[in-house]
Amino acid sequence: MTYRVSRSEVFQVLSQVRHPEIQGRNLVELGMIHEVIIEKAEIQVMVALPALNVPIKQQLVDSVRQAVARIANGLRVEIQLLEMDDAQKTAFQSAAKGELKVAPKAGVHIGRVLAVMSGKGGVGKSSVAGLLACSLRKRGVEVGILDADITGPSIPKMFGVHQSPEAGPEGIQPIESRQGIKLMSVNFLLADEDQPVIWRGPLISRAIQQFWSDIAWGDLDILVVDLPPGTSDASLTVMQSLPLDSILLVTSPQDLAGMVVRKAANMAARMGVRLIGLVENMRSIVCPQCGAIIELFGPSRATNTATLIGTSLLGHLPLDPQFSVLCDEGAIESYHSTAFEQITDRVLELVSLAELEPLFRQERE
Amino acid sequence: MTYRVSRSEVFQVLSQVRHPEIQGRNLVELGMIHEVIIEKAEIQVMVALPALNVPIKQQLVDSVRQAVARIANGLRVEIQLLEMDDAQKTAFQSAAKGELKVAPKAGVHIGRVLAVMSGKGGVGKSSVAGLLACSLRKRGVEVGILDADITGPSIPKMFGVHQSPEAGPEGIQPIESRQGIKLMSVNFLLADEDQPVIWRGPLISRAIQQFWSDIAWGDLDILVVDLPPGTSDASLTVMQSLPLDSILLVTSPQDLAGMVVRKAANMAARMGVRLIGLVENMRSIVCPQCGAIIELFGPSRATNTATLIGTSLLGHLPLDPQFSVLCDEGAIESYHSTAFEQITDRVLELVSLAELEPLFRQERE
Repeated sequence: MTYRVSRSEVFQVLSQVRHPEIQGRNLVELGMIHEVIIEKAEIQVMVALPALNVPIKQQLVDSVRQAVARIANGLRVEIQLLEMDDAQKTAFQSAAKGELKVAPKAGVHIGRVLAVMSGKGGVGKSSVAGLLACSLRKRGVEVGILDADITGPSIPKMFGVHQSPEAGPEGIQPIESRQGIKLMSVNFLLADEDQPVIWRGPLISRAIQQFWSDIAWGDLDILVVDLPPGTSDASLTVMQSLPLDSILLVTSPQDLAGMVVRKAANMAARMGVRLIGLVENMRSIVCPQCGAIIELFGPSRATNTATLIGTSLLGHLPLDPQFSVLCDEGAIESYHSTAFEQITDRVLELVSLAELEPLFRQERE
Repeated sequence: MTYRVSRSEVFQVLSQVRHPEIQGRNLVELGMIHEVIIEKAEIQVMVALPALNVPIKQQLVDSVRQAVARIANGLRVEIQLLEMDDAQKTAFQSAAKGELKVAPKAGVHIGRVLAVMSGKGGVGKSSVAGLLACSLRKRGVEVGILDADITGPSIPKMFGVHQSPEAGPEGIQPIESRQGIKLMSVNFLLADEDQPVIWRGPLISRAIQQFWSDIAWGDLDILVVDLPPGTSDASLTVMQSLPLDSILLVTSPQDLAGMVVRKAANMAARMGVRLIGLVENMRSIVCPQCGAIIELFGPSRATNTATLIGTSLLGHLPLDPQFSVLCDEGAIESYHSTAFEQITDRVLELVSLAELEPLFRQERE
């Protein structure tokens, strides 16, 4: 099979092309890469301009062509120019002024920032974020979880921690789990976990930014960000304001979930954030009585979904009732899954944590 | 067992108390009902004021006491006054100016508006919304679904419809399913269903309002609103701008889901919207090989959750892989579930659809 470049790779390379006139902004985050279509022998890039007669037009076309040509693998690169509609122009202007990356506190060193995303709710983002943190921690990695699901936080309950964070001389201290995973979630700030957080987008975004900028995370090899469902404020803020290295996607076997996950993947591509792979959750369950393996949501489509979004399927997880019980008891750290350890191996390679020495203290068992 | 009044009932009755000076606004939507605590012989209502010395203080206290006394069932009513903090004052002021109910198009008559909500993602809100619409339609009810999940819409795929809505003389026409259910979803407006909708809150809210105000829904006995997860913009807009009659909550057996569902229930109570009940989804699966009933997420907690939020458990549904397959094929209308028909019976009683004659054309089989 010949290697075909993926749309996600094209978006990624274009996210490294700076706008010649707007400082520090790349073409993808400015919404100028309208669409990328890959057909047999050709990569078509549709570039949207605020006006078709901008003086820097040729310069833009050249830089797009050059960047894409580098990964084109022999495919022809075609550039088409479009004029933005009014909504796109407004979005372009606000992106040009837009939110800047928020700095963490002084004294905080975070090696890698990895978001766990799905688009779809209830496929197990928080389970994967939690299991990944546990598995990394067991290997000696310094790890934290920023729970960016402000209206439906799951992390505190899974880890069985409920204290209020305290302010120290270096900032607000994250809560430590039994195994030493640093956690921050809105549920730590509520008197009663059943209390709803009825906030519109700007407050949601502000809370996430503060969880990044005001928390004394200390030295972490990796911070795992647990994203809520959707491609609205929380996801946008995490992708725009935090220095994300990569995104791990979670799906379930349904094509319905796959469709929403593909939306999330396309958002990541447009925002220029790298996808490191896909994990399929809840593929099947083992009958405790007769040992039959039952497919819960019909046949798996994860391989197909991974191909469509141009990423790798890192592994799949069964639905294990025992895992749900442990999460409800706050004992996720007592769970062991061989399937998940293999996923962790892949993630570790993909985020190149080893390059972070000496911060990285990996001691494989 | 003596009947105890529920917090949700107290919030509901207070949502009918108008502020004496702010036209058309009730105390609940203004954020003035800070908390309701029900202890053995007493209902404590904490009323938050922008300033403790407002001249209408006594008038407010009297109207709260009067309203709660009507449902107190012999319990003592205690009112405590608090001063709002700065954030609460800001929220109060914007609620005072806040969004008004949006009117539907001329010629549209909608008998009841019922939202399906959960707070938590992936528990089956869209499945329940879709099944409810199908079951009502089979009984001759005129029904529509407004898909308020703008970033993760599931309804079009379940019903296997993909046309673009057309503008007619009476407004934009909803898409009709095979059985004649009227549907509106953001996915009808996208060239490619995998395209993400990367919008911040205000655009999400605007889209939902337009799905209500600009669509030629015609004569409907009931419009089912499929809410996304969370208690942020989409849920707020549906509760503030649409004339919601009631909310049906969906949960899964996990306590983790239960906690987030309780947040949603508390939001509904604070916004003064009536909960008609709780449906538990994905309780168990039947092993196709040996017939064993397997609990998927540990023991059910739905009865406990229903009691905690002061509503009834209307029924529970198994996880049926055949249902997922039908949804992926766009054939939800071919599915039959006896368990769901019983839930529909309960919903029909609770939303008093029968009172809507002659609009209501129920023909029970």
